[in-house]
Amino acid sequence: MSNGTNVARVTHIIAESPSGFEDAVKVGFERAVKTLRGITGLRIAEMRVSVKDNKISTYRVKMEVIFILD
Amino acid sequence: MSNGTNVARVTHIIAESPSGFEDAVKVGFERAVKTLRGITGLRIAEMRVSVKDNKISTYRVKMEVIFILD
Amino acid sequence: MSNGTNVARVTHIIAESPSGFEDAVKVGFERAVKTLRGITGLRIAEMRVSVKDNKISTYRVKMEVIFILD
Amino acid sequence: MSNGTNVARVTHIIAESPSGFEDAVKVGFERAVKTLRGITGLRIAEMRVSVKDNKISTYRVKMEVIFILD
Amino acid sequence: MSNGTNVARVTHIIAESPSGFEDAVKVGFERAVKTLRGITGLRIAEMRVSVKDNKISTYRVKMEVIFILD
Amino acid sequence: MSNGTNVARVTHIIAESPSGFEDAVKVGFERAVKTLRGITGLRIAEMRVSVKDNKISTYRVKMEVIFILD
Amino acid sequence: MSNGTNVARVTHIIAESPSGFEDAVKVGFERAVKTLRGITGLRIAEMRVSVKDNKISTYRVKMEVIFILD
Amino acid sequence: MSNGTNVARVTHIIAESPSGFEDAVKVGFERAVKTLRGITGLRIAEMRVSVKDNKISTYRVKMEVIFILD
Amino acid sequence: MSNGTNVARVTHIIAESPSGFEDAVKVGFERAVKTLRGITGLRIAEMRVSVKDNKISTYRVKMEVIFILD
Amino acid sequence: MSNGTNVARVTHIIAESPSGFEDAVKVGFERAVKTLRGITGLRIAEMRVSVKDNKISTYRVKMEVIFILD
Amino acid sequence: MSNGTNVARVTHIIAESPSGFEDAVKVGFERAVKTLRGITGLRIAEMRVSVKDNKISTYRVKMEVIFILD
Amino acid sequence: MSNGTNVARVTHIIAESPSGFEDAVKVGFERAVKTLRGITGLRIAEMRVSVKDNKISTYRVKMEVIFILD
Repeated sequence: MSNGTNVARVTHIIAESPSGFEDAVKVGFERAVKTLRGITGLRIAEMRVSVKDNKISTYRVKMEVIFILD
Repeated sequence: MSNGTNVARVTHIIAESPSGFEDAVKVGFERAVKTLRGITGLRIAEMRVSVKDNKISTYRVKMEVIFILD
Repeated sequence: MSNGTNVARVTHIIAESPSGFEDAVKVGFERAVKTLRGITGLRIAEMRVSVKDNKISTYRVKMEVIFILD
Repeated sequence: MSNGTNVARVTHIIAESPSGFEDAVKVGFERAVKTLRGITGLRIAEMRVSVKDNKISTYRVKMEVIFILD
Repeated sequence: MSNGTNVARVTHIIAESPSGFEDAVKVGFERAVKTLRGITGLRIAEMRVSVKDNKISTYRVKMEVIFILD
Repeated sequence: MSNGTNVARVTHIIAESPSGFEDAVKVGFERAVKTLRGITGLRIAEMRVSVKDNKISTYRVKMEVIFILD
Repeated sequence: MSNGTNVARVTHIIAESPSGFEDAVKVGFERAVKTLRGITGLRIAEMRVSVKDNKISTYRVKMEVIFILD
Repeated sequence: MSNGTNVARVTHIIAESPSGFEDAVKVGFERAVKTLRGITGLRIAEMRVSVKDNKISTYRVKMEVIFILD
Repeated sequence: MSNGTNVARVTHIIAESPSGFEDAVKVGFERAVKTLRGITGLRIAEMRVSVKDNKISTYRVKMEVIFILD
Repeated sequence: MSNGTNVARVTHIIAESPSGFEDAVKVGFERAVKTLRGITGLRIAEMRVSVKDNKISTYRVKMEVIFILD
Repeated sequence: MSNGTNVARVTHIIAESPSGFEDAVKVGFERAVKTLRGITGLRIAEMRVSVKDNKISTYRVKMEVIFILD
Repeated sequence: MSNGTNVARVTHIIAESPSGFEDAVKVGFERAVKTLRGITGLRIAEMRVSVKDNKISTYRVKMEVIFILD
């Protein structure tokens, strides 16, 4: 947080991808960056895998999104 | 989370009811459903009871509300 | 906590009932209210079930009892 | 644990019911009691609610099942 | 939570101040009160200190903001 | 714990002050020292702020009080 | 959990791979799917790395395996 | 908890012994049993060791004491 | 975990002994080793003491048992 | 962490002051800055108070010190 | 830990990489292996992402490094 | 912490012994006391058991070592 802007907000999202955990992080970040300005970081809170028909179907990540309030 | 919609948001609410914990869950859910579309689940995070004049006055539940982002 | 009384104490109890968790909360509260004045709230810390002879016998709740010190 | 039998096992299950958390506990217990002998208790580990079409569809409970090993 | 209004929301913010932790709490509260009506309380979740050029530069507080939903 | 006295008890209190967290700790300590002999320490467990009419009204601290049993 | 089958079991496994954490998840899943029918998901509980002769030798993942009980 | 007595209280103590952790548990239990009737169990919450003059001086155990309320 | 066998399972047991916590660990291990092949380790998760007639009756240990899957 | 230096170390210290928690943070920071170059931040992990002769004697803070490795 | 060497030390580091979490683990491990002999393992404690100018800039991992003391 | 010396450091070690947990604590303490001056205490963080060839081979303790910085 630089001078003048000294309050950030923390939002929680869950994102998923069939490709892996890091791709799920990117999917979530790309969705968040569409509506939130000033994102400074993410914190991974939980990692899960969904299984369908005896196959891994998606990797799922719950994460905090931190962004500066104007 | 079905195809195409693969990011959900998690909001935190506290709801209360004089009737019991499950009714507090319903009160919170009914308030959330008014303003949030695409709710898929709730997670109970904390349960408390308020006491007034030596009587239980309300049951209080803190919970996560998970809903799909369009 | 209203004016003048600004310290509360927290006590921990375990209560049980054959009827369910909320009834266990009430059983614990009713026992506590006999000896403690100024109870303002309870916080549920743990929920367990006792089983005897392949039947649920009691619902058990561990909880904090918060009460104002005179 | 009485004399002679001094080791218990802890299994983890998730059970759900459309009626409420306590009914979900019963559903899980009734399923467990079919295959496990000597159950002595349950411990609630997590409570969730599933939502479908803007309605609460099921109450879900994750719990430990403790049973004596012969 | 008084009669009629029985659902609150919990938001998470991070605020900082060069003066100390309590001032960081005030900075965060003053920012929050600009956009949120009906704040009833804050809960401190984490305290950090930022260091620059071998000097403490800011005190940082992560906290929950609880406010009544109309 | 010196020789001869080797058991301490831990009590939990919540104290508040309009002036800040450290003053709340002092308020709690001063109340505890009136009725408990042999206090050796405190441990801060939770910090909250109460808000009334869009102003911070009190700083609240939940803490353990450790004291030697005679 | 669909209609009729409303109890799931949670098992805990540790799996490892020389290739990375996601491959360890797959190794564990493929072993689990051999003996367990109806797996619906995994939850990552811990990630570790084993080192031998100053080289990373394996990535290790502890996880929950959730599967429907018939 | 047998019939008729269905509320227990939980107290927290810290006990120490120069002989070891289990002896510290006994020291704490023997002090507790002097003033509390109806103790049913203890739960170990923390284990520490005190060191003086480069020697282990005491083993210290923080524990819950559970006892039935008449 | 050596080459070829790279998945382990984690089971949870509770064991007790009148002699002390380490003996309870041994009692649990000896029971587990009867039915599980390939045990590589245990992790202590909780320690409790049962009290009967104002005497310590048993020391109880909850623990994870880790064993290689063939 | 700026370009080129991308590994930091985390050390844990406990510092105390008779004046308050923030002064204890400063005391710890000033001691750490004497021997560690490149400190970027602190994280408060625990706050305690020492009591002697029925008076608060020191405020004690356990904290992480994060510093860049050259 | 093999015969004769039976004490290990645990150090905490934070490492980052623009390529992903596993690469951050490698960056941290390679820095640690330069100064520490006898590393036997790592444990991941936290995963974060830094964001600059609306892009993911680095993946950051906090981890324990375990190494044998000679 | 006496006057003049008011900062302590916390180091984390893992020690093991074939004889039991308390002996593992002693093994770790004796190794630590060789290189660290001013140790004031230890805190047990984790207890594990290693198994080889269906026998308990070592008891392992992870612990904090607290020592005064000159």
